[in-house]
Amino acid sequence: MMSLRNAALAKPQPKTESKSASLRDRLIETRALSTELASPLSDEDQVVQAMDDASPTKWHLAHTTWFFEAFVLKRFLPGFRVFDERYEYCFNSYYESVGPRHPRPKRGLLTRPSGEEVRTYRASVDEALDRLLDQALAPEAAELVELGINHEQQHQELLLTDILSLFASGPLKPAYRQAGPGVGGSEAAPLSFVSFDGGIFDVGHEGAAFAYDNEGPRHEVLLRPFKLATRCVTNEEWIEFIEDGGYRTPTLWLADGWNMVQSQDWQGPLYFEAAEGGYLQMSLNGFRPVDPAAPVTHVSYCEADAFARWAGYRLPTEFEWEVAAASVPLQGRTLGEGHLRPMPASPSVGLQQMFGDVWEWTGSAYLPYPGFKAAPGAVGEYNGKFMCNQFVLRGGSCATPDGHVRRTYRNFFYPHQRWQFMGLRLACEA
Amino acid sequence: MMSLRNAALAKPQPKTESKSASLRDRLIETRALSTELASPLSDEDQVVQAMDDASPTKWHLAHTTWFFEAFVLKRFLPGFRVFDERYEYCFNSYYESVGPRHPRPKRGLLTRPSGEEVRTYRASVDEALDRLLDQALAPEAAELVELGINHEQQHQELLLTDILSLFASGPLKPAYRQAGPGVGGSEAAPLSFVSFDGGIFDVGHEGAAFAYDNEGPRHEVLLRPFKLATRCVTNEEWIEFIEDGGYRTPTLWLADGWNMVQSQDWQGPLYFEAAEGGYLQMSLNGFRPVDPAAPVTHVSYCEADAFARWAGYRLPTEFEWEVAAASVPLQGRTLGEGHLRPMPASPSVGLQQMFGDVWEWTGSAYLPYPGFKAAPGAVGEYNGKFMCNQFVLRGGSCATPDGHVRRTYRNFFYPHQRWQFMGLRLACEA
Amino acid sequence: MMSLRNAALAKPQPKTESKSASLRDRLIETRALSTELASPLSDEDQVVQAMDDASPTKWHLAHTTWFFEAFVLKRFLPGFRVFDERYEYCFNSYYESVGPRHPRPKRGLLTRPSGEEVRTYRASVDEALDRLLDQALAPEAAELVELGINHEQQHQELLLTDILSLFASGPLKPAYRQAGPGVGGSEAAPLSFVSFDGGIFDVGHEGAAFAYDNEGPRHEVLLRPFKLATRCVTNEEWIEFIEDGGYRTPTLWLADGWNMVQSQDWQGPLYFEAAEGGYLQMSLNGFRPVDPAAPVTHVSYCEADAFARWAGYRLPTEFEWEVAAASVPLQGRTLGEGHLRPMPASPSVGLQQMFGDVWEWTGSAYLPYPGFKAAPGAVGEYNGKFMCNQFVLRGGSCATPDGHVRRTYRNFFYPHQRWQFMGLRLACEA
Amino acid sequence: MMSLRNAALAKPQPKTESKSASLRDRLIETRALSTELASPLSDEDQVVQAMDDASPTKWHLAHTTWFFEAFVLKRFLPGFRVFDERYEYCFNSYYESVGPRHPRPKRGLLTRPSGEEVRTYRASVDEALDRLLDQALAPEAAELVELGINHEQQHQELLLTDILSLFASGPLKPAYRQAGPGVGGSEAAPLSFVSFDGGIFDVGHEGAAFAYDNEGPRHEVLLRPFKLATRCVTNEEWIEFIEDGGYRTPTLWLADGWNMVQSQDWQGPLYFEAAEGGYLQMSLNGFRPVDPAAPVTHVSYCEADAFARWAGYRLPTEFEWEVAAASVPLQGRTLGEGHLRPMPASPSVGLQQMFGDVWEWTGSAYLPYPGFKAAPGAVGEYNGKFMCNQFVLRGGSCATPDGHVRRTYRNFFYPHQRWQFMGLRLACEA
Repeated sequence: MMSLRNAALAKPQPKTESKSASLRDRLIETRALSTELASPLSDEDQVVQAMDDASPTKWHLAHTTWFFEAFVLKRFLPGFRVFDERYEYCFNSYYESVGPRHPRPKRGLLTRPSGEEVRTYRASVDEALDRLLDQALAPEAAELVELGINHEQQHQELLLTDILSLFASGPLKPAYRQAGPGVGGSEAAPLSFVSFDGGIFDVGHEGAAFAYDNEGPRHEVLLRPFKLATRCVTNEEWIEFIEDGGYRTPTLWLADGWNMVQSQDWQGPLYFEAAEGGYLQMSLNGFRPVDPAAPVTHVSYCEADAFARWAGYRLPTEFEWEVAAASVPLQGRTLGEGHLRPMPASPSVGLQQMFGDVWEWTGSAYLPYPGFKAAPGAVGEYNGKFMCNQFVLRGGSCATPDGHVRRTYRNFFYPHQRWQFMGLRLACEA
Repeated sequence: MMSLRNAALAKPQPKTESKSASLRDRLIETRALSTELASPLSDEDQVVQAMDDASPTKWHLAHTTWFFEAFVLKRFLPGFRVFDERYEYCFNSYYESVGPRHPRPKRGLLTRPSGEEVRTYRASVDEALDRLLDQALAPEAAELVELGINHEQQHQELLLTDILSLFASGPLKPAYRQAGPGVGGSEAAPLSFVSFDGGIFDVGHEGAAFAYDNEGPRHEVLLRPFKLATRCVTNEEWIEFIEDGGYRTPTLWLADGWNMVQSQDWQGPLYFEAAEGGYLQMSLNGFRPVDPAAPVTHVSYCEADAFARWAGYRLPTEFEWEVAAASVPLQGRTLGEGHLRPMPASPSVGLQQMFGDVWEWTGSAYLPYPGFKAAPGAVGEYNGKFMCNQFVLRGGSCATPDGHVRRTYRNFFYPHQRWQFMGLRLACEA
Repeated sequence: MMSLRNAALAKPQPKTESKSASLRDRLIETRALSTELASPLSDEDQVVQAMDDASPTKWHLAHTTWFFEAFVLKRFLPGFRVFDERYEYCFNSYYESVGPRHPRPKRGLLTRPSGEEVRTYRASVDEALDRLLDQALAPEAAELVELGINHEQQHQELLLTDILSLFASGPLKPAYRQAGPGVGGSEAAPLSFVSFDGGIFDVGHEGAAFAYDNEGPRHEVLLRPFKLATRCVTNEEWIEFIEDGGYRTPTLWLADGWNMVQSQDWQGPLYFEAAEGGYLQMSLNGFRPVDPAAPVTHVSYCEADAFARWAGYRLPTEFEWEVAAASVPLQGRTLGEGHLRPMPASPSVGLQQMFGDVWEWTGSAYLPYPGFKAAPGAVGEYNGKFMCNQFVLRGGSCATPDGHVRRTYRNFFYPHQRWQFMGLRLACEA
Repeated sequence: MMSLRNAALAKPQPKTESKSASLRDRLIETRALSTELASPLSDEDQVVQAMDDASPTKWHLAHTTWFFEAFVLKRFLPGFRVFDERYEYCFNSYYESVGPRHPRPKRGLLTRPSGEEVRTYRASVDEALDRLLDQALAPEAAELVELGINHEQQHQELLLTDILSLFASGPLKPAYRQAGPGVGGSEAAPLSFVSFDGGIFDVGHEGAAFAYDNEGPRHEVLLRPFKLATRCVTNEEWIEFIEDGGYRTPTLWLADGWNMVQSQDWQGPLYFEAAEGGYLQMSLNGFRPVDPAAPVTHVSYCEADAFARWAGYRLPTEFEWEVAAASVPLQGRTLGEGHLRPMPASPSVGLQQMFGDVWEWTGSAYLPYPGFKAAPGAVGEYNGKFMCNQFVLRGGSCATPDGHVRRTYRNFFYPHQRWQFMGLRLACEA
């Protein structure tokens, strides 16, 4: 099989945010990428669920397919008949409007339908999508295909982080893919900051290009002058925090965070293990020595917040981040780069790593923008109903499909969750 | 015993926010009020804890006393010796800096020290505070006494809501105090809205008067034009929500809220019970028919949010609320009124019920204001460490001691909690 | 108040199993003893429940009263009216036939009815019982009064072990009663064994005297020759087990026991704490140094079984115990002795400590005897429905009311429970 | 692939308890049968674990292999090297003496080693066993091979009941194997009883033939005259129990059973579902109408006990069962028959179904026989450490490998467990 890295090299470079790639091409590419991401995995690997938050690979492959079937094909392809009526129960994720569904913590019990049947399901739906796209597409249908593409890209990232949680759970700790030759041993650029003026800024998405509903309405925010670190916090800095007793000092922590430290016995980022002479961390490249210069990853909001307090800084708000991001090109080490883990910042001047490498926790609770209204119907459940108890992350990661992230993109997770590629960038008052 | 209502009548009327009442007078009054609030309760009533979130009355009485002992007397009264060294372990609430403490869910097991011993403890500390206040007080000491007064006022409110949770837990459903001669049968003023202009506003506390650290720094916020309901949502409106299937319609709910509805079998506000011909609700006046015109109370953030969505409105942000509150006098039906439950709005023009009756959920997550820094030492644990996963409530309730609440006051609870006097006021875009 | 010990001295010595004491006298004595046992406790102490298995003192006082009301007075006293109809819901323990009841883990929330009301309730029911016993009593009524006496005696023992669980749960560790002038420093008699022949033996209760239904029918059992230790296992022996790594050696344990060791972090008997120079254990006489010569107490079946395996012995069966007990007088250090904790065996020859001091775990599962049928109606729920997952203990303890235990008496608890006065005696094949 | 049924036909009929089959032949047959039982299952089916009590097929295949490696090959085959040192951690079940192991509830996460690797592991160990058996075998080695055969047979039964728990957990409810051409619609033989005399009987295993340690020592028991039903309780009888309100009548139940009924919402046997016009039950032949004449299966001890009480009978003791079993040939519908579900009794005279069809719950707690000593070392953990909280079942089931069960065989499960082929036979006093 062609490796992801090679695939990326062999294919024309993805033009991020290009409008030239047709919807059909992007649909085909996206559908193919899911299959490719699953290909290093056996059917066994694809069926199991390591924890309630994660889903099996096979479930991702089927659910993203069901999404097109339920929201696009059933409505817009005349004469379409669903592949198997029982799949809606199996592969609906959380759409209450659609009906009952298999309980989330039991997704890993679905040995039937088999991996082979799910691949056939995918092919069948792909073929139907192909027929649909042969026709002139109603605008609403096109929007839903676009949503389906972006939805599937999100699941591609989850597929990778979920398989990592599985591979980290057992004693054998296999690599999803072996790391490429060397890098490592690098030294991080020193911590420095870029200053930004205060003022009133427009934030949020506007316009015809695709964005999730939670990115709008575009609106004004008032910011005070602030400074933002040029790069993410590194493993080396995090290890200093550990060794300074960060995980044993309650006054550094939010109360909910300290509860997690104690009840879950947190002593470092997820998958970290102290070993002789250093630290190891499970990764998609296997269980490896931690690269001191690379961004720390797999830390929760609570940990990020405690670290920032220890360091004498704070997390940026999501709007500070977005305003700062306006000054840099929308590019970074996302999935197509093939690293599958965050890489050290280059020693250049100015903001680095704003896109790719790790999602960056912000200090902003995930809440609706002024004037936000969820879309009617089931797709309205996509984002809005999670606007409670979660925090916003920005910028994408090493597992985010190329072209998926935007400056206005709002990712969100609970403050105790750590299994995504989550890191942080420091900020402070100017 | 003189009833609270009578006490309020007999005493000179509390001058809210008056600076004329001396610190010493306010200390004495506050300490006396705690004792008075406990007086209708037997020692048995005072020792038990109905749920993890609640604390026993005796514990409140002792903890507020320990607060003065630990943070004021030990530091500022020469020669002071603590009443009993073991009490710090018993009655420290959550101050990690101070040391280990009795586990919160086991506060209700502390039959020793006895109620009588705790009363002696209070008297002993009161006497020492008296000696301290005989002297010229260092500014820091005065600030900490002020903090201790406000801290004790917060516990007075908790004492009442916690005893309600106890009295609601058993089959006998006693009244904390019988209701005064009836009001009831009232009709609510029709729902109407007041419009506010957008713009840049200053919010947060500034100046020499006491405020909690989480109310500052004062800073600018940018608001869009908005409308705010003239009164709180009533029981009658909430019953309409219930009877329209509000608790059975997942699309109205945040995902975390719907989980609560299902796992906790929520079918109405806390303490609500459907009965023939209407609804009853447990209250500090016993188990009573719900007053349709009174503000709904004991609803969670998730319920308030679902109601607002059902009604076609939203919750105000905490800053909208604060800006609107600038236009009305700082007065309302707080504890001194003696109702012990929220009362219907009067049919006047303009904003009603902004203070007192029920705490009003806002749509704002409880987060630090720009530039916020927690105070050093244990009192720095007072507010800042809870800035995660909670939402802000504004305005005080029928159980808030007179003079305690401010326009800038930020109360905060988890979005699933309901045992406080929590209600809501609707808002929308202008 | 007259102490228990003095009460025992002042009163005519209880004639165990004597038939001369009239039913009425024994009823009065039993009812009075409950009140006396509660008298060192404040109303606060009496209302709280330290764990699900335990009940508050007030609840014991009320439940035993309700038992007479529900099963005797309502049926046999013409014109009787219950004291308060709501009490059946409050104070029914587990009689499904009688109707719904307050949940067991919430017994400690019943601050109402108050202690004073429960005392009035007791007096009222006592007065009604007095009237009932003025008349000639139907045989069935007499049997139920007898059952009520024995039932209340069981609750007297629970009252003491439950209050110990409460007093052990807090930091102040008060004594229920101060110990009398010391014994202590004693040395245990060396471990020796008495041999018994095998054969067919009659076991179980028969005849007119009172016994619980689970003690019959009397039936034959076949025993092999066996040896029984002359005394119970001592603290000194148990400490040797601890210090030999008994709690860290999985092969000594039943699987369910090892699970408890690990999940509950058992490192010694309940209430044991290692201290400089020895061990302390919470007791009804307060937190005290362990007496090496006294029987170990507050050990579970799983611990007793592991100890026996470590020591190279086994637990006796309940029938071995019963056959051996036939050879010794039915007397021992039960409640009337006033020790309130197990005392060292005297250095005499032959079986010691068969009655009183500690209940002795046997290796017999608690199962029905051949031909056992539970009584019809609610009293049939008394014993039979617990014949699953529990083990039999024999012989009574230092907290068992005088005259309550019999040679055929079968006490039973789950194999992980430890809060009763539970110890063990070793046995082996002859 | 040759079906199990055909395999049984094609092969020489298994001679149960025959001594003529050599150890080697039986080893080969047993090892082959495991592979054959797994063969209808995909690698996906084989890796997943539906509940904590169950294990994945792959884990069974690997664990039984590890058993030979750890207990036989490492000790007795010179020069033997383990296949992969990490497998001991993965595939040790509960042998504390051997060392740490992968947590039981996470066995279903072991996607690595793969199914293919486990098959290679099996082949490698089979080859080593072959080499071992080429030599003259030390008696201890032969005993351990025999134990390994019997151990693997037990796991064959678990493999089937565990895969049933998996297939029942999802919405598709696949058959492990389609049922053969129908029987069904049958009518059960009327309930009748066989009488047995009382007396002293020898029970338990003795002699050179293989038996588990828990079957001995052989010893005398004293029985009273009793009657035993000629056949097992049928589905038809059980449905009568359901429809008479058996699951809603607390007085029929042991307290622990009633807790299960309420907390788990038991309304019938495991996998039972009420449907229009009757009941369906998931089985290894798929989701099928219940056969009224077939033995009820998948009922817990608590249910069996409640049913017997409702019917006016009781469960037999394990010794009554064993004594009765002496009168019938050691044969029945075990795995080789190929039914994979219990079948109706034939209308013959005398005891039917004593072996095969369903394991029969007895009223005997699983306890050691007089004089029982566990073997030293890890194999001593095989049975003895489970002698707490479990009940004995007798007679084997439709999933028990041919030749595995004995008259003295003691199976044991917790009284709430139901996922095995568990049924019951009624008994009463003569």
